[in-house]
Amino acid sequence: MKISENFRALTPNYLFAEVAARVAAFTAEHPQKNVISLGIGDVTLPLPECVVQALRAAAEEMGEQASFRGYGPEQGYDFLREAIAGYYAGKGVKLNTGEIFVSDGAKSDLGNILDIFPRGMTVAVPDPVYPAYVDANIISGNKTVFVKALPENGFLPLPDKSVKADVIYICSPNNPTGAVYDAEKLRLWVEHALATGALIIYDAAYERFITDKALPTTVYSVPGAEYCAIEVCSFSKTAGFTGLRCGWTVVPETLAGGSVNAAWLRRQCVKFNGVPYVVQRAAQAVLTPEGLRAADEHIAYYLENARLIAGALGEKGIRFFGGENSPYIWMECGMPSWEFFDKLLDSAQIVGTPGAGFGSGGEGFFRLTAFNSHENTLAAAERIKRL
Amino acid sequence: MKISENFRALTPNYLFAEVAARVAAFTAEHPQKNVISLGIGDVTLPLPECVVQALRAAAEEMGEQASFRGYGPEQGYDFLREAIAGYYAGKGVKLNTGEIFVSDGAKSDLGNILDIFPRGMTVAVPDPVYPAYVDANIISGNKTVFVKALPENGFLPLPDKSVKADVIYICSPNNPTGAVYDAEKLRLWVEHALATGALIIYDAAYERFITDKALPTTVYSVPGAEYCAIEVCSFSKTAGFTGLRCGWTVVPETLAGGSVNAAWLRRQCVKFNGVPYVVQRAAQAVLTPEGLRAADEHIAYYLENARLIAGALGEKGIRFFGGENSPYIWMECGMPSWEFFDKLLDSAQIVGTPGAGFGSGGEGFFRLTAFNSHENTLAAAERIKRL
Repeated sequence: MKISENFRALTPNYLFAEVAARVAAFTAEHPQKNVISLGIGDVTLPLPECVVQALRAAAEEMGEQASFRGYGPEQGYDFLREAIAGYYAGKGVKLNTGEIFVSDGAKSDLGNILDIFPRGMTVAVPDPVYPAYVDANIISGNKTVFVKALPENGFLPLPDKSVKADVIYICSPNNPTGAVYDAEKLRLWVEHALATGALIIYDAAYERFITDKALPTTVYSVPGAEYCAIEVCSFSKTAGFTGLRCGWTVVPETLAGGSVNAAWLRRQCVKFNGVPYVVQRAAQAVLTPEGLRAADEHIAYYLENARLIAGALGEKGIRFFGGENSPYIWMECGMPSWEFFDKLLDSAQIVGTPGAGFGSGGEGFFRLTAFNSHENTLAAAERIKRL
Repeated sequence: MKISENFRALTPNYLFAEVAARVAAFTAEHPQKNVISLGIGDVTLPLPECVVQALRAAAEEMGEQASFRGYGPEQGYDFLREAIAGYYAGKGVKLNTGEIFVSDGAKSDLGNILDIFPRGMTVAVPDPVYPAYVDANIISGNKTVFVKALPENGFLPLPDKSVKADVIYICSPNNPTGAVYDAEKLRLWVEHALATGALIIYDAAYERFITDKALPTTVYSVPGAEYCAIEVCSFSKTAGFTGLRCGWTVVPETLAGGSVNAAWLRRQCVKFNGVPYVVQRAAQAVLTPEGLRAADEHIAYYLENARLIAGALGEKGIRFFGGENSPYIWMECGMPSWEFFDKLLDSAQIVGTPGAGFGSGGEGFFRLTAFNSHENTLAAAERIKRL
């Protein structure tokens, strides 16, 4: 019994464990100090009432003979796929329900989609980035090339014609940098993919944080993307579903003559049994006018937190990215990021995430997040100003 | 953009689509006839009240700031892992919670587990069998060798020393044959795996249907299995969770010195984000005394249906397997199984599943299931007797 050699190439991921260990050590030494975490990438507001109501109603349905539902379609119930198609129609993008696959969240599909492609592909991944892209490709035996996101390009790298990749991962709004591609820059990526035959895997998990109407919230707002891009999205950050697990993946029927869509459907039918009915009903509730209003109240709450942090950093003259159209603030820390972690914890009792945890390109930067209460965020902003 | 070559080797799976098409054609031609389906592999009874109650309560928790939960542990909450460890303790099997991974159902893990092993393995699969084993291995680029389940071995094949496999799939109680391994036969498989270094992937999804106390309900009842076997199980058939999606996978820490457990944890952390909190609370409710009592009432209901069908077949002198300790009855049909499908539909308006749909070894056999109401099952049994 042998483990795949690919697992040897994975570097242990101790990022959040190390953060927790250092915070625990600090708290043990200074039990009277009030530590505020701006390090969490997880939502903090409870589910909107209409979502709870939908969950409750679906639970009741499942307890009655007449309305009980067993196995659902692997690709999701039509009621939810139609609601998602309607959501895209509101963005001016026309999708067939057959192009929409309901998922248990972005992370699963961002990795599992590799099942349908050959091993040993070359995959372009921005650096710094959400570590799961890289790890999933290592597990699949693919070769990763890094596209450098730098302060000089606003952490929004553009295509490099010298790089020949089979797959290109793009995350916008970006985790961890908070940077958001505009339509023009996104068009350059789509043109590059079309010219080179590459597939774009577009992670739009934070799209609902985009309040600037000029910025694209879906890759399909760029003409031609339906011939080169898969989009992965999620209810996690939109409506507090991180503990409820629901998202979707768009696989256009125009992609490689429908073969990608057919292969993904087949893969899901073999290795997935769909998302819980009750969760799909909850997700459907998010996409009603009432649900979207509640979601936007959440988003506004977090964006106000981001504004508070950005304001404090601005007042101190600290360079940062993100903080608008994103729950993330990516600040320059002027020293190794773990050193800054200790310094900030010690001097201001604020916890953040060292940029080095998101790839070597994250060194010298530090991620702060908007996922806390106004009160705590305000207190943290005041502490930053006083530093 | 190219699809993996492995997908070309997949044969289209039209089994249930073809069944549905033939039933639709028959119904269109004979709208007055009452067709009874004994073809479904899905539960029909609604969720037990205590499960609905747990779902409702968890939904409420998620709507309150103080009790809201975001991301949970990828491997499942301790409250559920401890309940599952307790369930095994009741079978006399000691597991650490670190050996238990909460899943969104057996199908996902039965396929995804292949991620942690090298490509190109030789995998032994019984024939006939649940088609997802074979398809998941084709997608992974593994070589499948079939272990023939035959009437002569009671559809319980034993190890063949001439077959050198890296992985061996065993499903007991079996889908589709309803056959159940006894402790002695299971011991032969465990000894074979230990002697050859093979890994057993043991699908115990139907274990709760075993009412004969002499039969093993877990592979770990066989000494040594903790050194060679992963067990995949599910709440789907135990407590009607096919639409709620929850199961578990046991990966012993004793397997290959802990390396399999560590690799699976890493895989899940990269490509999975855990099961919805509300669903894990529902699953926990199943493992309470009240929940297990309710589950056993469901099981007894389905087993009574199986008894009715078995009784009718016995009265007609038709040879069959299963029907005890299993919701499946595997009957000899004495002709090509699709021909029998048409014949049974035409003469008795009963729908079943042609054995050929489960592999070439299923030809000449036909699967009937206990998943219908008593009333319908009784009516079907009467029709069989009158044939």
